[in-house]
Amino acid sequence: MSADFTPEGLHDDLVAAGHIIPVGVQGIFGRGPVFEQVLRQFDDYVSRVAAPDLATRMSFPPCLDRKVLERSEYLDSFPQLAGTIFSFTGNDAQHKELSENVHEGRPWTHLQTMTAVCLTPAACYPVYPSFTGTLPEGGRLVDMQNWVFRHEPSPEPTRMQSFRVREFVRVGTPDVVVAWRDLWLQRGLEILTSLGLPARAEVASDPFFGRGGRMLAANQREQQLKFEIVVPVIWQEKPTAVCSFNYHQDHFGKLFEIQNPNGDTAHTACLGFGLERIVMALFRTHGMQLADWPASVREQLGL
Amino acid sequence: MSADFTPEGLHDDLVAAGHIIPVGVQGIFGRGPVFEQVLRQFDDYVSRVAAPDLATRMSFPPCLDRKVLERSEYLDSFPQLAGTIFSFTGNDAQHKELSENVHEGRPWTHLQTMTAVCLTPAACYPVYPSFTGTLPEGGRLVDMQNWVFRHEPSPEPTRMQSFRVREFVRVGTPDVVVAWRDLWLQRGLEILTSLGLPARAEVASDPFFGRGGRMLAANQREQQLKFEIVVPVIWQEKPTAVCSFNYHQDHFGKLFEIQNPNGDTAHTACLGFGLERIVMALFRTHGMQLADWPASVREQLGL
Repeated sequence: MSADFTPEGLHDDLVAAGHIIPVGVQGIFGRGPVFEQVLRQFDDYVSRVAAPDLATRMSFPPCLDRKVLERSEYLDSFPQLAGTIFSFTGNDAQHKELSENVHEGRPWTHLQTMTAVCLTPAACYPVYPSFTGTLPEGGRLVDMQNWVFRHEPSPEPTRMQSFRVREFVRVGTPDVVVAWRDLWLQRGLEILTSLGLPARAEVASDPFFGRGGRMLAANQREQQLKFEIVVPVIWQEKPTAVCSFNYHQDHFGKLFEIQNPNGDTAHTACLGFGLERIVMALFRTHGMQLADWPASVREQLGL
Repeated sequence: MSADFTPEGLHDDLVAAGHIIPVGVQGIFGRGPVFEQVLRQFDDYVSRVAAPDLATRMSFPPCLDRKVLERSEYLDSFPQLAGTIFSFTGNDAQHKELSENVHEGRPWTHLQTMTAVCLTPAACYPVYPSFTGTLPEGGRLVDMQNWVFRHEPSPEPTRMQSFRVREFVRVGTPDVVVAWRDLWLQRGLEILTSLGLPARAEVASDPFFGRGGRMLAANQREQQLKFEIVVPVIWQEKPTAVCSFNYHQDHFGKLFEIQNPNGDTAHTACLGFGLERIVMALFRTHGMQLADWPASVREQLGL
């Protein structure tokens, strides 16, 4: 492992190797061919590890029913990160005004109206409404790969506005859900260390908004509701979270009225592999060129 | 091929088979495991056909630099379809107001501010800025799979607000670009007919906005700038476009200052396979259960 990068240094190295393609706005960049190949092979590796669990595979678009965002309480905790979608719903005269404003660089915000959809704020959110009602015996397990939006432009390539998460969601009784979370914490560490990444797990908290946020974060840590697996990507001393494990207790079960067969409110947990961050961790650890990677890592990924 | 479906009939059949998962808003639904498997296998089939061309593979997020949308003239033609992204940028007091409004079902539009990003309106848009400057001899060819947003909620499952397109973009001299477009029109027909789909090509036009739009569409047809491959999905008599081939002449070359080595403005063309529509065409033509599909189709797709 080489010395620390700077955010700009890592960004420039990824660009020079053709792994990311700048587009003029921070946190939104194209991914090059080798980046995509590594991402797909890593995702397939996770599939192999997950296979015995027989999870139900689903895929959701990067957009979400706005009612789900409103109901989820996300806007109470992370209003600064959420993205809502607006569109033009005017007539010919307003269209003329819109076009003129755009061409002359004047504001056109007032010609946009909030739609019924927003951006998916976390990979697990789209699935909860489909659990509403009484669960089958043993609960449910869903496996997804979804694009997630976070409004946090940054020069750090690891801090993206739009990225993919391989996400698993478990819903059922508290003991089943927690045991499943613990199993995957172990599996996640094994997957990452098998790829030569110096990964470790730690208790974590979410970036709650505002003055009240600090207390919420402290509470989350105290109850050990969130774990992350971290790997040095930019800084050795300040490693980057590449997997996140969240035990929501009965939060989503209450909000979306999900019951276990015995009538109790269901508990949920989710875990996500931040796919772009893991690919960047691999390039940072093993070098920007696949040819330089250890044979064992390439073999494990089928590269 | 059975008789006509209705939009609702096709929707309900896809839901009953577990292929799509309703989420409470039109045009935004989850995709089930078999749907995703067919989509991936079809996408891989396109990769096998495209392999000899050695296109540069890229991937872009579902979000785009808003400046690219503004510069592209998309808002002149299709303002009603574009999606812009807003977020909360206020302080603690405004956050309190936001949370209260959300919980009490009052409007909260005024607490959202336009960001520097918007939704990708067509799968080819993210790539044009990366062509700016003088092209290498022979031009360039890029291969992508991107999520696209269209603000057009509809009960027709084929008319989605968010969907994936396997997109190829060719940039170079007019003769090279048009010959490439023609080659892929043939390849597209061959791919789809090899899967037992009753596909045919036709001249088409885009859904330009407003009173002026009709003339633009007529002009586009007259110059044969847009072709579509259509397949019956809902109605026999009104088949659905599943591939689109667009010759932009020097439109994007001028807007993004792209030159051929001889100094002329570069021409561009793009083609896209509407992946969800093709998967729905396969289910509609061969049946909702993979087990009922012709052996030749399953073999071609490796299913």
